[in-house]
Amino acid sequence: PKRYSITLLPGDGIGPEVISVAKNVLKLAGSLEGIEFGFQEMPVGGCALDLTGVPLPEETLLVAKQSDAVLLGAIGGYKWDNNEKHLKPETGLLQLRSGLKVFANLRPASVLPQLVDASTLKKEVAEGVDLMVVRELTGGIYFGKPRGFGKNENGEEIGFNTEVYATYEIDRIARIAFETAQKRRGKLCSVDKANVLEASMLWRKRVSAMASEYPDVELSHMYVDNAAMQLVRNPKQFDTIVTNNIFGDILSDEASMITGSIGMLPSASVGESGPGLFEPIHGSAPDIAGQDKANPLATVLSAAMLLRYGLGEGNAAKRIETAVLDALDRGFRTGDIYEAGTKLVGCKEMGEEVLKAV
Amino acid sequence: PKRYSITLLPGDGIGPEVISVAKNVLKLAGSLEGIEFGFQEMPVGGCALDLTGVPLPEETLLVAKQSDAVLLGAIGGYKWDNNEKHLKPETGLLQLRSGLKVFANLRPASVLPQLVDASTLKKEVAEGVDLMVVRELTGGIYFGKPRGFGKNENGEEIGFNTEVYATYEIDRIARIAFETAQKRRGKLCSVDKANVLEASMLWRKRVSAMASEYPDVELSHMYVDNAAMQLVRNPKQFDTIVTNNIFGDILSDEASMITGSIGMLPSASVGESGPGLFEPIHGSAPDIAGQDKANPLATVLSAAMLLRYGLGEGNAAKRIETAVLDALDRGFRTGDIYEAGTKLVGCKEMGEEVLKAV
Ligand SMILES: CC(C)[C@H](C(=O)O)[C@@H](O)C(=O)O
Ligand SMILES: CC(C)[C@H](C(=O)O)[C@@H](O)C(=O)O
Repeated sequence: PKRYSITLLPGDGIGPEVISVAKNVLKLAGSLEGIEFGFQEMPVGGCALDLTGVPLPEETLLVAKQSDAVLLGAIGGYKWDNNEKHLKPETGLLQLRSGLKVFANLRPASVLPQLVDASTLKKEVAEGVDLMVVRELTGGIYFGKPRGFGKNENGEEIGFNTEVYATYEIDRIARIAFETAQKRRGKLCSVDKANVLEASMLWRKRVSAMASEYPDVELSHMYVDNAAMQLVRNPKQFDTIVTNNIFGDILSDEASMITGSIGMLPSASVGESGPGLFEPIHGSAPDIAGQDKANPLATVLSAAMLLRYGLGEGNAAKRIETAVLDALDRGFRTGDIYEAGTKLVGCKEMGEEVLKAV
Repeated sequence: PKRYSITLLPGDGIGPEVISVAKNVLKLAGSLEGIEFGFQEMPVGGCALDLTGVPLPEETLLVAKQSDAVLLGAIGGYKWDNNEKHLKPETGLLQLRSGLKVFANLRPASVLPQLVDASTLKKEVAEGVDLMVVRELTGGIYFGKPRGFGKNENGEEIGFNTEVYATYEIDRIARIAFETAQKRRGKLCSVDKANVLEASMLWRKRVSAMASEYPDVELSHMYVDNAAMQLVRNPKQFDTIVTNNIFGDILSDEASMITGSIGMLPSASVGESGPGLFEPIHGSAPDIAGQDKANPLATVLSAAMLLRYGLGEGNAAKRIETAVLDALDRGFRTGDIYEAGTKLVGCKEMGEEVLKAV
C-alpha cells in the first residue's frame, strides 16, 4: 500500500477534539483506498508556549517539513491574548506558514443545500453560493519590513507595518488563482485597493498581465471596500477571488460567515513544493473546548482537502466529502448548525456518523 | 438671520444631481430656522482633472477651508480609472480630507423600518440595526510613508505602503469615538489586527488606556476578520465601532450594505477645528449619471449631518431627517430602494417630495 506521513498539530481549545475525529476519518478513508498513514503529533500555538516557551518549536517545524502533509486544529486562547508578539500563539501559526512556504491559501465558502437556513442571508441570496477565496499567505503586511515601534519627528510613539509585494509573489499567487478558476467556473475576481495603494497598483498590473495566458478565464478587478459590500449584496456573483494577505483574511472570514456554517469550512495552504498545511477556518473556541460540543466537520473536510490538494488522492477525498454530506442528510447536526427537526450530536458522535458513511 | 458659507463640491457622475437636490433642501430647512446660506460651487475629482489638470485645484481647497462646511457629491468614473496616481479623482478626495484635516469619519448605518426588506439579510437579523462606524480618515496606510515602487534585494520590482499610527492620531480619534458612544447606547467596539500588526498593538493600547476616562462607555476589542463576520452574523450587537482608515473603509461599506440601502447613507468627516466635510457613502455611479435616477437621500441626509455636526444647527437637521422619513412613509422610492407597492420616482421628484415635507 501507499504510505504517507502526516503531521498532526492539534493546537489549542477545540483543536485536539476535532483533530482526533479527522484522524480517524482519514485513516478509514485511506485504508479503503489502499493508503496507509503514519501520524506524528506535535505542539504548536498556546500549548507549545506552555510546553516549550515558544509558539513554534523547531522540532515541530522540522517534523512538519519532513512529512507529506500537515493537518492543524486551531490555535490561541484568552490565556495568551496579552502575550508579547513573539510569544503569541498566532505568531507560531505565522511562522509555520512562512516556514512551510505555503503562500497560497484556498478558502472555499459554499452554502450546502442542507444548511441554507443557517445563513443570516435571505434564502434566495444564500442558496447556490459557491466561491473560493485564494488568499496570499506569506507576504504583504503580515510579514513586510520594516515593522515595529518607534518615534516620529515630534518624539511621539508610533507603531508601523509595511505592506509590500514583489512581482514574483504576485505572479505565483495569481497563477494558482487562474488555475483554480479554470477548474471551477472560469471567473476570477482580483480584489485590491489600487485607487489608493501602490502595493495594490503593482498587484493589479501583474494580475492583468497574466490574463492573456488564461483566455478561458474571465478576469475582473474590484476594490476591497466594494468586494466587502458585494459579498453581502450578491455573493453568487463570485466564483474565484484572489487577493492579498490582509484583505484575504477579512474577506474570506466574511464569505465564510455568509454561508452561516463556519464550523463546516476547511482550508488548504500550499506552496511550490513541500507539504501543504490544512486547517479549518474556525478558531480554537476556548469557551466550548473539552466539552465535546465542537463541530469536527471543518477539520474532516480539511483532511479531504489534504488528500486532494496535498497528496493527489482524489478518490479518498471524495469518500470523505460524500460521507460528510451523508451524515448531514441523515439529520445529524452539532450545536452550531442545529435547527429544529434535526438530531443534535456532539463532536465524537458526529465523527462516528461520518465514519459509518465513509 | 445667521449666515453660513457652504462649499458645494458636486464632483462626478451623479454628484451634480444629488447636490442640486440637497442644496434646495438645505436652503428651505435653513430659511425656516432663520438661517441663510451662501453657496459656492467648486470642482473636485474627475471634472477638476478635465478642467484644470489636477484632481484638487488649490482654489477649491482654499474656498473649502474658508467656508463653514463642505458638502461633496461623489467623485470618479471609468474615464479616469487608469490614470496615474497623482491624476486619479480619488487622489483629489484624499487631498481634500487631508487638507481640511478631517481625521474623524462618522458613518452611520441604520436599517429604517420602512426599508427593512431592502436588506439581503433576514428580517429578524436586519431590523433594528443602528450602528456608527468611526473611521480614522487622515492617517494609516492611506497616507503613510515611505510608499511607492522600488526593487528588492533580488532586483525585482516591488510596490509598498506603510501602515503607521502615532499616539496622538489614535488618541484624537478614540476620544471622538468614546464621545460618540456616550451620546449613543454607550457601547464602543475597537477593531484592529493586534494579533499580527504592531500598528494595531499600539492602537489597542492607547484606546484601552482611554477607557477609564469614560466609565459610562463599555469598551470591547475585536479583530478585523472577526468584525467582518460579526457584521453579517449579528449586526445588532454593535453600537459604535472605531477603527483605522483601511479597516474602516472596508467595514463601513460592509455595514452600509447590510442595511440594503446604501443610497440612503450619509457621512460626516470632522477635525479639531475648521469646516467639516459631508458626503454620501455611495460612489459616482457613472452608469446612471445624468438620467435623473439617482437617490438623492444620502446627500440630503449628509446635509442634515452638516447642519448638526458642522454648524451645530440641530433643529434644521431634524427638519430634514423628519422630511426624509415622511417622503418614505408616503411611499416614494427611487429605483435602488423600489419595491412593489411603492411609488417609483426620479432624483428630482424625490427632492420635491422631501421639500414638501421640510
Ligand atoms: C490567527 C491569525 C493570525 C490568522 C490570520 O490572520 O491569518 C487567522 O485569522 C486566519 O485567517 O487564519
Ligand atoms: C474613493 C476612495 C479613495 C475612498 C476611500 O477609500 O476612502 C472611498 O472608498 C471612501 O470610502 O470614501
